[in-house]
Formats: sequence, structure tokens, C-alpha cells
Amino acid sequence: MFTPIKHTTVSEKVIEQIKEMVSKGDLKKGDKLPSERKMAENLQVSRTSVREALKELEIMGLIESKQGEGNFIKTSFEDILLDPFSTIFLIKESNAQEILELRNVIEKGSVILAAERITSEELKEIKEILDTADISDSEDELVKLDVIFHYKIAQSSKNFLLQSILNAVSSLIEASIKDTRKNILVKKEHKDIIKKQHNNIYNALKNQDIKAAEKAMSDHLEFVNNEMKKSIKN
Amino acid sequence: MFTPIKHTTVSEKVIEQIKEMVSKGDLKKGDKLPSERKMAENLQVSRTSVREALKELEIMGLIESKQGEGNFIKTSFEDILLDPFSTIFLIKESNAQEILELRNVIEKGSVILAAERITSEELKEIKEILDTADISDSEDELVKLDVIFHYKIAQSSKNFLLQSILNAVSSLIEASIKDTRKNILVKKEHKDIIKKQHNNIYNALKNQDIKAAEKAMSDHLEFVNNEMKKSIKN
Repeated sequence: MFTPIKHTTVSEKVIEQIKEMVSKGDLKKGDKLPSERKMAENLQVSRTSVREALKELEIMGLIESKQGEGNFIKTSFEDILLDPFSTIFLIKESNAQEILELRNVIEKGSVILAAERITSEELKEIKEILDTADISDSEDELVKLDVIFHYKIAQSSKNFLLQSILNAVSSLIEASIKDTRKNILVKKEHKDIIKKQHNNIYNALKNQDIKAAEKAMSDHLEFVNNEMKKSIKN
Repeated sequence: MFTPIKHTTVSEKVIEQIKEMVSKGDLKKGDKLPSERKMAENLQVSRTSVREALKELEIMGLIESKQGEGNFIKTSFEDILLDPFSTIFLIKESNAQEILELRNVIEKGSVILAAERITSEELKEIKEILDTADISDSEDELVKLDVIFHYKIAQSSKNFLLQSILNAVSSLIEASIKDTRKNILVKKEHKDIIKKQHNNIYNALKNQDIKAAEKAMSDHLEFVNNEMKKSIKN
């Protein structure tokens, strides 16, 4: 049987070469790529093809272009899922309810792994976050500390995929349920409940108690998500 | 304080307009976009800018270009996470072990929601998959049925985000731990174990028993992931 011949454009071939160099480790995070002119010379293709390829790699999130400095392999990939998740929301394949469910799934998965893998250094950092929140009376600071608290736990799971999903989820929650985190965190009657829940999570992690960590995170998210759902409806 | 002025290119403005039309519902899944010429006329920009914008939206996974037919808003977004996940792997921010952990987290989350939400139609489909696997002696068919079995459960969760993550995870497992699914599924001593595990999951879903569904999925994935880890090491 005949199968359709795939037309590979020159820029696609350039992309393949760059990807292969990354895969082999010849290009690493933060490395500067040769200039457009040099790449065109070495690959014997037009500068337009090189430019197209670089633009495409930038949209894919593999490289970043710094004005006046050139093109670099990115150093941080934590935001790479934000654009595709945003597209899913834009086209309405998903909604706020589903993002809260995903958050639930990811945070429970993270805290289970974190309970096994967290270092004493990470525990210290988490304790400091909670202590700072304890004496803070700035609403914006409380929100920031809450985000960092949850993010640190995902980090302690030592699983980059969970981290990057949580990152995208958090950004989408901020964007789609605007000010909700703040509204929940600063309500006087909530403050003590959340403080206790955060402490429960911290203590379970400190004791490396997987079951307690999962339970504490579940209780916390059930409370927070219920409050968030109220504001989705309003 | 001065803040740097963001340079918005013409093609970025075109992208914004298209995104806004999608967001408002003026452009829906499967809709055909006007021709490049027409868009350039209406937006009073160059055809090059339109072409750049369309290319970018294609890479972002919002539109697809069909040769000789034009540009369309995509109809399926299930594969949208595959490229960013692949990039994460390419740059070695993550590895096979982490993808198995993520699979674990997502499948357990899915089966919990599915136990609440599965329809009798979906249960019937899953039963048929298991019955077909029961009498199949084709290795390739067994692999395909296994993928569909797990995918159907994610679908029954009615959470598109979980579905699309599982989709990306499955593809990456196929790509990075090549033939592993097959090797595990066809081993004579595994076949009966897996059949029993799949049936346990099905029965728990049928009984809408959340705890049993989570347990059955955990047991199954623990077994399968352990076998997979062996082949990562080999």
C-alpha cells in the first residue's frame, strides 16, 4: 500500500537537529545557540528557515530569545504546561470545577511522595513559611505564602511533572477564580482553621507519615475547594 | 517608575483576536477560518503576519491546517499535552520513574471520580473490552485493549484534564519504555493476574465503590509499575 509522503520543511529539519543536540546533551539548559547567520552557514540553509525554526522552538518552550543577546536553551521549564492548559480552557474543554479536581489529585499525590522524600532542609523552609504566615497581617503576603507552601510540598515530592502540573493549575486558579485564594485566606473564621490544617500537613511530613499526610492534605483541600466552589457559583 | 514597554508584533495582535473569538464562542471546534487573504484584508495587516499567527496557533495546538482545505479550529485537544511533556523529557527534567509515578497519581484520581460518575453505557463498554481481551490471542490486540481499558476509565471520570494528562503519559511510556506494556501483558504468568486485577477494577466501578476502586487500581498499578521498573533497569 502507498502511504502519503510526509513533506518535511527545511525549518523542521533544523528543529530536528537542535532537538537531537539537546537529547544528546550537546546543548544544555542555559546554553547559548549560535547566531542565526552562523547556524544558516553551518546547516547550509537560508536564514529564514533558521528563524522559523527558532520561533517554533520558542513557542514549544524549549528556547528563549533575549533581545540583543541571542537565543538560549531555557533554564526553567516549570511554566511549560501553562499555555496548553490555557488553550484547553480557552476552547472550553475544561472548567473551574475540573481544575479543582485536578489540583486535588496532584496535591494528594505530591504529599504522599513528599512524606517519603522530604529533606530536613525542606522541612525547615516549610516551617519558616508557616511561621511567617502566623505573624503576617498583609493579605497579599498571606496569599503568596500559601502558594509557596503548596509549591514547596510539590517540590519535595522530587517529581518535576507533578510540580509543573501544580504550577499550571495554580496559575489557572488565580486567573479563573480571581481573588478567591485571598478571599478564603483572609476571612477571620477561616484563618485559624487553615493554620491548623497547614500545621497538620507539616507535622505529618515531619513524621514521614504517608497516611497522615494524605489525610491532612485531603481535609485541607476539601475545605478550601468547597469555599472555592461557592465563589465559582457566585 | 518606568516599566519596559512590551513590543507587540502584528502577528501577536492577530493571535489575540483569534483567541478572543474562540473565547467568546464566535469560533468553535471544527470551524473553518477565513482564508489568509481574507483575514489579511479584514484585519488590514500583511499576509505574512497572518501566516505567522496561524503557524503559531498551530504549534500551540489551537488550530490545524489541512492541505488544500484551509485552517480549522481543532476538534480534538486530547494530544495537546504530549509536546510539552516530550520537551520536559528531551531536556531531561524528568525521567521514566517520574512518569510512572504521575501515571499512578492520575489513574488513582481518575478511578475515584469514575466510581462516582460512570454511566451504565460506559460500564458496558469496559466489560466488552475485558471480554474481548479474554478471548484474544493477539499480542498487539491485548496491548491496544489495555490502553483503551485505562483510557475509558479516565473518560468516565468526566474530567478532561485527567484524560489529557493520561493520554500524554501513555504515549510517553510507549515511547520511552518501548514494548514494555506488551512484554508485561503477554507473559503467561502475568495474564491471569492482570485479568483478575482488571476485573476487580471493573467490579468496583460497577458497584460505585470508591474505596474498592482506588484499592483495585492501586494494586494493579503497583504490580504493573514494578514490572516496568524492572525493564527500565534492564
